[in-house]
Amino acid sequence: MRLKLRNIFLVYFVVSIFGLLYAVLQLGQPCNCSQILREGRGRHNPVSPKEPGNQGGVDQLPIIYVVTPTYERPHQRAELTRLSQTLLLVPALHWILVEDSLKRSPLVADLLAQSGLHYTHLNVQTPPPMKLKEGEPNWLKPRGVEQRNEALRWLRVNQSPMDRGVVYFADDDNTYSVNIFKEMRHTQKVSVWPVGLVGGLRYEGPLVDKGRVVGFHTAWKTHRPFPIDMAGFAVSLTLLLMHPEARFDPNAERGFLESSLLGQLVSVEDLEPRADNCTKIWVWHTRTEKPKLKQEEALEKLGRGSDPNVLV
Amino acid sequence: MRLKLRNIFLVYFVVSIFGLLYAVLQLGQPCNCSQILREGRGRHNPVSPKEPGNQGGVDQLPIIYVVTPTYERPHQRAELTRLSQTLLLVPALHWILVEDSLKRSPLVADLLAQSGLHYTHLNVQTPPPMKLKEGEPNWLKPRGVEQRNEALRWLRVNQSPMDRGVVYFADDDNTYSVNIFKEMRHTQKVSVWPVGLVGGLRYEGPLVDKGRVVGFHTAWKTHRPFPIDMAGFAVSLTLLLMHPEARFDPNAERGFLESSLLGQLVSVEDLEPRADNCTKIWVWHTRTEKPKLKQEEALEKLGRGSDPNVLV
Repeated sequence: MRLKLRNIFLVYFVVSIFGLLYAVLQLGQPCNCSQILREGRGRHNPVSPKEPGNQGGVDQLPIIYVVTPTYERPHQRAELTRLSQTLLLVPALHWILVEDSLKRSPLVADLLAQSGLHYTHLNVQTPPPMKLKEGEPNWLKPRGVEQRNEALRWLRVNQSPMDRGVVYFADDDNTYSVNIFKEMRHTQKVSVWPVGLVGGLRYEGPLVDKGRVVGFHTAWKTHRPFPIDMAGFAVSLTLLLMHPEARFDPNAERGFLESSLLGQLVSVEDLEPRADNCTKIWVWHTRTEKPKLKQEEALEKLGRGSDPNVLV
Repeated sequence: MRLKLRNIFLVYFVVSIFGLLYAVLQLGQPCNCSQILREGRGRHNPVSPKEPGNQGGVDQLPIIYVVTPTYERPHQRAELTRLSQTLLLVPALHWILVEDSLKRSPLVADLLAQSGLHYTHLNVQTPPPMKLKEGEPNWLKPRGVEQRNEALRWLRVNQSPMDRGVVYFADDDNTYSVNIFKEMRHTQKVSVWPVGLVGGLRYEGPLVDKGRVVGFHTAWKTHRPFPIDMAGFAVSLTLLLMHPEARFDPNAERGFLESSLLGQLVSVEDLEPRADNCTKIWVWHTRTEKPKLKQEEALEKLGRGSDPNVLV
C-alpha cells in the first residue's frame, strides 16, 4: 500500500509537472493574430506592401504597377494626396510616379515618402516643342507621353518576364473605385472596361457579346483602332516585356495615343472584358478646375501675401 | 510517514489540478489581438467602426461625425466614391450624408451600403426659391444649408452630451488628407486650420500667435466675423448640443454662412488652432469640372445612346 501510493504519486507528479510546464510555456507565447489580421484586411482595409520583400508574400498576388504622370500646378499636392489615399486601399501595388520636370521635386518626394505606399519616383521633361503652352486648350497636345514611356523603360530594366504583374496608366485627376484594381489584377494580355464621363458621353466602353469584345460604345473618332480611354485598360507586365519596343507614340494624332501602344501588343479579339462584361463603371474621367488665385497678387502688393513656407 | 505522504500527495493533487484546469481553460481562449490590430491600424490602415456598438470601443476615440450635403449630378457617384474611400482610412468615423432631394435615392443608398463605413443617410429638399437654377453661377446662393441643418437636427435627436464627438462639414468635392481628421479628433470647442486653394489665394487660414488665433489670412470680405471656409473648422458635439438653437442661417449673406453658425457657439479667442499652428495644408477647396455630355443626345438620335442600365 505504501509502495503503491508512492508510485501513484511519483507517476502523477512527473506527468503533471510536464503538463504544467507545457501549459506555462504556451501561456507565455505571443498570440498568432495573422488569421484575424488577414480577415480584417480582406474586408476593406488591405495593407499595401511597403517593403519590396513583401511583394511576393502578400497573398501571392500579381503586383499592380500604377503609372502616374504628373506636373507642377497649384493643385498638384491635393490631387496626388487624394490619389495616394485611394491606392493605399489596394494590396500589392507599386506606384510609379513620373514628373514632367528636369529634376525630381522635393514636394513630390516628400509626399511619396509619407504615403505609406511602395513606390518609384522618376522624372523626364517633355521636350519644349511638344509642351502645352499657357492658355492653350489641354486637348491640343497629348500630355504625359514621355512620362509614361519613361515608366515603361524603368519596368523593362527593373522587372523580369517571370514577375507576375499588370501595368495601369492612372492620371492624377481621375476618380478610381478600389473595385477597378480587383478587376485588372489577373490580366492575361490586356483587360478592358468602361470609363465614366468621357468622350462627351455618360461613359465610353467596349461592347461585349459572349465574353468577347465585339465593338465600342463611343461617339468621338469612332475609326480609332482602340477607342479606349487611358483609364480603360491594363496591360500584363509579361506582354510588355515580350514587346520591348512597344511604347506610346508622342506624335500620335489626338485620340490615337492609346491605340499607338495597344496596336503593338494585341488585336481587338484579344481584349479581356472586365467589370461584369463592361457594364459597371468603376473609374471616371473627372477633371479638377484650375484654381483661381487672382487675390494672391493683390495681397502681395500690400505686403500680406500667403506665407511661401506654407506648402499647399 | 504513510500519513505524511498521503497529505503531501493530496495537497499537491488539489493544487496541481486547479493549476492544470486554469492552464487548460486559458489555452482554449481565443487570442486577444486588439493590441496588434491597434498598432497595425495606427500605421496607415485604420479599420472604421462598422457596427454602432463598436463606437465606444475603438480605442475610446471621440467619434468624428462627417456631415456631407450632396445633390444629383453626372459626377455625383464619382465624387462620393472618392470621398468614401478617403473616409475609410479614418478610424471611429460616422458619415452623415444628406441628399438635397424629396426622397433618398437608391444610387446613394447602394453606395453607402457598399462603402464599409458607419453611416446615416438623410434627405431634405432645399425650398425651390432658395435653389440654384440651371446656368446660375454657383456662388449666387449658398448650397447645402438645409442639408447641414438637417444633420444638426439628427445629431441632437440621436446623440447625448455625454457622447464624445466632433462634427465636421465636408463637402463632396473637396480634397482631404487623412491627417486633417487626426487634427480635429480632440476638439474642445471649435478647432480651426487653413484651407488650400480658396478665396482667390493659395490658402486662407487663421493667423496664430502664442497658440492663439489673432487674425486671419484672407483677401475676400475681410470683415466677416469668422473668415473661415466650411472645410476649415470642426465643432465639438457637446458644444453643439449645449446650444440647441445653433444652426446655419439660410439667409446669410454670401460668405457669412460659416460665421452664422460659429457666432452662436464661440468667439474668435476660443478657437483652437491645429495643423501645426495653422501652417500645414491638409484640406483643399478643389472643384470638379462639370462633365460635358453633349454627344449623348447625338447618339440617342441614332438609337445608340448610352445604356441607361449602366450606373455612372
